[in-house]
Amino acid sequence: MPIAQAIDDLKTLLGERVSLSKSDLDAHGASESYFPSTPPQAVVYPRTTEEVRDIVKICAKADVPMIGWGAGTSLEGHGQALRGGVTVDFRHMNRVLEIRPADMDVTVQPGVTREALNEELRATGLFFPVDPGANASLGGMAMTRASGTTTVRYGSMRDNVMGLEVVLADGRVIRTGTRARKSAAGYDLTALMVGSEGTLGLVTELTLRLHGQPEAVSAGICAFPDMNAATACVMETIQMGIPLARIEFACAQTARAFNAYAGTDMAEAPHLMVEFHGSPQSTEQDAERFAEIVADHDGSAFRWSAREEERRALWAMRHNGYYAILASRPGARAVVTDICVPISRLAQAVEATQADIAASGLPGPILGHVGDGNFHAILLVDPDQPAELDKAKDLAARMATRAIQLGGTCTGEHGVGYGKLPFMQSEHGDAWQVMGSVKTALDPQNLMNPGKLVPSN
Amino acid sequence: MPIAQAIDDLKTLLGERVSLSKSDLDAHGASESYFPSTPPQAVVYPRTTEEVRDIVKICAKADVPMIGWGAGTSLEGHGQALRGGVTVDFRHMNRVLEIRPADMDVTVQPGVTREALNEELRATGLFFPVDPGANASLGGMAMTRASGTTTVRYGSMRDNVMGLEVVLADGRVIRTGTRARKSAAGYDLTALMVGSEGTLGLVTELTLRLHGQPEAVSAGICAFPDMNAATACVMETIQMGIPLARIEFACAQTARAFNAYAGTDMAEAPHLMVEFHGSPQSTEQDAERFAEIVADHDGSAFRWSAREEERRALWAMRHNGYYAILASRPGARAVVTDICVPISRLAQAVEATQADIAASGLPGPILGHVGDGNFHAILLVDPDQPAELDKAKDLAARMATRAIQLGGTCTGEHGVGYGKLPFMQSEHGDAWQVMGSVKTALDPQNLMNPGKLVPSN
Ligand SMILES: Cc1cc2nc3c(=O)[nH]c(=O)nc-3n(C[C@H](O)[C@H](O)[C@H](O)COP(=O)(O)OP(=O)(O)OC[C@H]3O[C@@H](n4cnc5c(N)ncnc54)[C@H](O)[C@@H]3O)c2cc1C
Ligand SMILES: Cc1cc2nc3c(=O)[nH]c(=O)nc-3n(C[C@H](O)[C@H](O)[C@H](O)COP(=O)(O)OP(=O)(O)OC[C@H]3O[C@@H](n4cnc5c(N)ncnc54)[C@H](O)[C@@H]3O)c2cc1C
Repeated sequence: MPIAQAIDDLKTLLGERVSLSKSDLDAHGASESYFPSTPPQAVVYPRTTEEVRDIVKICAKADVPMIGWGAGTSLEGHGQALRGGVTVDFRHMNRVLEIRPADMDVTVQPGVTREALNEELRATGLFFPVDPGANASLGGMAMTRASGTTTVRYGSMRDNVMGLEVVLADGRVIRTGTRARKSAAGYDLTALMVGSEGTLGLVTELTLRLHGQPEAVSAGICAFPDMNAATACVMETIQMGIPLARIEFACAQTARAFNAYAGTDMAEAPHLMVEFHGSPQSTEQDAERFAEIVADHDGSAFRWSAREEERRALWAMRHNGYYAILASRPGARAVVTDICVPISRLAQAVEATQADIAASGLPGPILGHVGDGNFHAILLVDPDQPAELDKAKDLAARMATRAIQLGGTCTGEHGVGYGKLPFMQSEHGDAWQVMGSVKTALDPQNLMNPGKLVPSN
Repeated sequence: MPIAQAIDDLKTLLGERVSLSKSDLDAHGASESYFPSTPPQAVVYPRTTEEVRDIVKICAKADVPMIGWGAGTSLEGHGQALRGGVTVDFRHMNRVLEIRPADMDVTVQPGVTREALNEELRATGLFFPVDPGANASLGGMAMTRASGTTTVRYGSMRDNVMGLEVVLADGRVIRTGTRARKSAAGYDLTALMVGSEGTLGLVTELTLRLHGQPEAVSAGICAFPDMNAATACVMETIQMGIPLARIEFACAQTARAFNAYAGTDMAEAPHLMVEFHGSPQSTEQDAERFAEIVADHDGSAFRWSAREEERRALWAMRHNGYYAILASRPGARAVVTDICVPISRLAQAVEATQADIAASGLPGPILGHVGDGNFHAILLVDPDQPAELDKAKDLAARMATRAIQLGGTCTGEHGVGYGKLPFMQSEHGDAWQVMGSVKTALDPQNLMNPGKLVPSN
C-alpha cells in the first residue's frame, strides 16, 4: 500500500491533526546540530494512546516509517525522517495525569516538558531532577536516556523512569514496570525502552520518580589557572564523597562566549560551577570543604550564595551555554561531542581533547557535566566549508575512540541517533549486533525510527 | 546428537571438572524452598570465560539445556534443571579481578560471593552494598536482580551493576556497559541481562559500583503495639526523607522465632530494625528524628547503638530470619512470598496479608525490607500434607494479585524462576509476551535455563 493511502486513513482518524504543510514538514526534518534537513511526508498530532495505536496500525499496514517527536532538541539527528514516513509529534499529549506525593511519583503524558512538570510540582515540595538544559519533553528525554547537570546527585532517566506505556510496532500497547520501588519480575523492559530512541515503539505514558525539594540550596563558581587544576579539583571532590548536586565545567573559551552572550564578566579561564542540596548547615559545610579543595588546586576564591536570583542567573548562563557558543561564531553549525569516561581518566581525556582541538585550528569550546566524567566539545564549523565539517568529524571520531579506550563511552547522554552510529561497533563489538536482534524481534518490519541506533541490514 | 556425546566432549574439555556423581547432581537439583528435586544430567565447573564459551558451544550443538549456578540460594526454583541438561557451576570462577578505588568500581568473576568481595574490599575504605542476607554469588545476585536490607539507601543489583561479560546461547561472548558513570550509547543490555535469571546467557564477569564505607554507623531496634503502628512509622519515616540505610520489619511471630533460634529476649510484638550511615553527628540526628516518629506511633523506646558488636548481632539475627522461621516448625518447607507495593500501600498490604494468613490457619511469619515496600510471608507447610501446600500456594497467589492491584509486583527481589510464573501474565499482560520475543531472539533453541521466567511455547 502506498503512503498516500496511509495519509488518507490518518486524515480519517485525526482530521486536521494530520499536517502536510511544507513548513511543518521542514520543522520536523530539521536538527539542532549539523545534519541536513530530512523531512517526513506527514506530521500527525495524536491526543490519546488509542490514537497512537491506530496511527501505528495504519502505518504498519502501509509499511510506512514512524518517527516520534518530543521537543526536537536532540543532537544526533534522532528525529530525522531518514527514510521518509510519518512523524508523530506528541505536543498535544501534554497532561500531568497523576501526582502521588505519598509515593513520590508522577504519571505524565510524553509531551509534558520538564519545565512544565516542575512548574506543576512546585507546590507539592517535590521536583523532577533530570535537567538536560534544553526544555525537552519527558518522552524525548526517556527515549534518549537524558541526563544533565543534576545527574551527579539524582541520576539520569535510567534511574528516574519507573514505568512506561508503549505502543509497539504491531500496535500492541504494553505497560512496563510497576509503581513499586523495585521488582525482580522478569526482564527490565523499562530499562530496555529507556534510551531506545523510538526504535522499539512509541511512548504514550511515563511514570517518574520524584525527589523532595531540598531544604537549602547553595551554588557558586570559581576559576582555575588551567584545565588540569580544574579537573584535578573535580576528581578529588568526587573521590572525597562531597555530595554535589551539580558540578559543571566551562573552559576559557566558553567563559568568553558567556561574557559576550550574557554580558557577564567571568575571567577568561577554566571555571567550575557547583551546587549543593541539603540543610542550611550541610550545604554550608559542603561548600566549605569544596572551597578548601579549590584552594588546594590554586582556584580563585570560591564565591557561593544561597540566594535564589544568583543561582538562577548562574544556571541560566550554563543552560544557554550551547547557544552562547554557537553565537561566538556567527553562522556556524555545531558538531557536538559527548564523551564520558571513568572519573580517574577525566583529566587525561580533557587534556588530550584540548590538544587535539588546538591542533585542528577549529573553535571548540568545552563544557560539561564533569562530575559524571562527561563533557562536550562544541566544534564550530562553517556550513559552507565541507572541509571544516570533515575535520570536525575526524576530531569527534578521535575523541570517541579515545573515550572508548579509556573505558568510557562515545555518548554519555545525547544518544546515538545516526550521528554516533559510526562508533557503535567499536564501543560494543558483538553486543551491537545483539541490539539489532532485539530490534528485529520487536520491530521486524523496521518501521520504528529506521536508520537509527542499531546496525542497518 | 544425544547428551552422551555432549558429556564426552565436555570431559575432553574439562576433565575431572565434569561431574556425574549422584550427590553432585542432587545438590544441583535441590532448592532452598518447597520445589521438588530436579537434577541435571551433569555438572561442570569452568575456570575461564573461554571454557564457558566452549561448554556453550558443545551444549548448543547437542541441543542440551544449560543452567547457571552461583551459590544456589535462590528461592523460586531458579536453578533447577526442569528439562535436564548441564548445570554450569561458577564456584571456581571466584577471583576479584581488579579493584579501582579512584573510580569506585571493581571487576569480579561471577562466583565471588558478596561476603568474599567485602572481605577483599575492607582495607580500601569501599564496600559493595547489596545484601540479600544469604551469602550469594555476585553472578547469581545479578541474575535475580537481588536486593536486600540496604537497598532503601544504595539500590539493588539494577543500580550497582555497571557492565557484564556474557556468553550467549550461540557461544558469542559480549560485553555490555562501560566503566563510565552513565552512557546513552544504545539499548541498555546490562539492565536487560540483570534479572534475566540465566535465560539469555551465562555471565562470566561483572563490573560493579562500590560505595565509600560510612564514617559512622548506628543501628537500633524498637517494638510496636501492633502491625499498623509499625507500618505507619515506616511510611512516615520514608516520606519525611530521613536517610535510612536499612529499615526491616519483623512481626510478632518472627520475633518469637528469633528468640527461640538465637536466644534473644525480644518482646513478642512487631519490631523495626534500622540503621543509619553518615557522620557521627548526622547518624545521631537521624536516630533522634526517627525516635520521635517511633514515639508518635506508640513504639517502645528506640534503643540504638554505634557499637559494632551490637550491630553485628542485630543483623546476624535478621539474616538468620529465614532459618529461624523454618526452625519454628520442625520439618516444614517454606512457600516464600515476596510482594512489593508503593510505600503508601504498605499498611494496607501487610494488614490484608496478615488477615489472610490468620484465616488460613497456616503459620506465616512476616518480615521484610519495608523501606522499599517489600515484605515476605514465610508460609510453613508440612511437606507430607499436599493440602497444606495447596493452601499456601492459594494464599501466595492472593497476595500476588493484591500487590499487583495496588500498583506493585509479585516479586520485589527473589525473581520469577518457575515459582512465580503463574503471576507473570497478570502482572505484565502483553509485556510478558514481549519478554518471550526477546528471549527467542537471543536464544532461539531455548537452551538457556528453559522453563523459567518467559512464557513457554
Ligand atoms: C542546548 C541544548 C542542551 C542540551 N543539553 C543536554 C544535556 O545536558 N543532557 C542531555 O541528555 N541532552 C541534552 N541535549 C539534548 C536533548 O535536549 C536531549 O536529547 C533530550 O532528551 C531530547 O528531548 P526532546 O523532547 O527534544 O526529544 P526529541 O528530540 O523530540 O526526540 C528524541 C528522540 O526520542 C524519540 N521520541 C521522542 N518522543 C518520543 C515518544 N513519545 N515515543 C517514542 N519516541 C520518541 C525521537 O524519535 C528521537 O529519536 C541538549 C540539547 C540542546 C539543544
Ligand atoms: C535465607 C535467605 C535469604 C534471602 N534473602 C534475600 C534477600 O533479602 N534479597 C534477595 O534478593 N534475595 C534473597 N534470597 C534469595 C537469594 O539469595 C538471591 O536470589 C540470590 O541473588 C541468589 O544468588 P545465588 O548465587 O545463590 O544464585 P543461584 O541460586 O545459584 O542462581 C540464581 C539464578 O541465576 C542463575 N545464575 C547464577 N549464576 C549465573 C551465571 N554466572 N550466569 C548466568 N546465570 C547464572 C541461575 O541459573 C539461577 O537462575 C534469600 C535466600 C535465602 C536462602
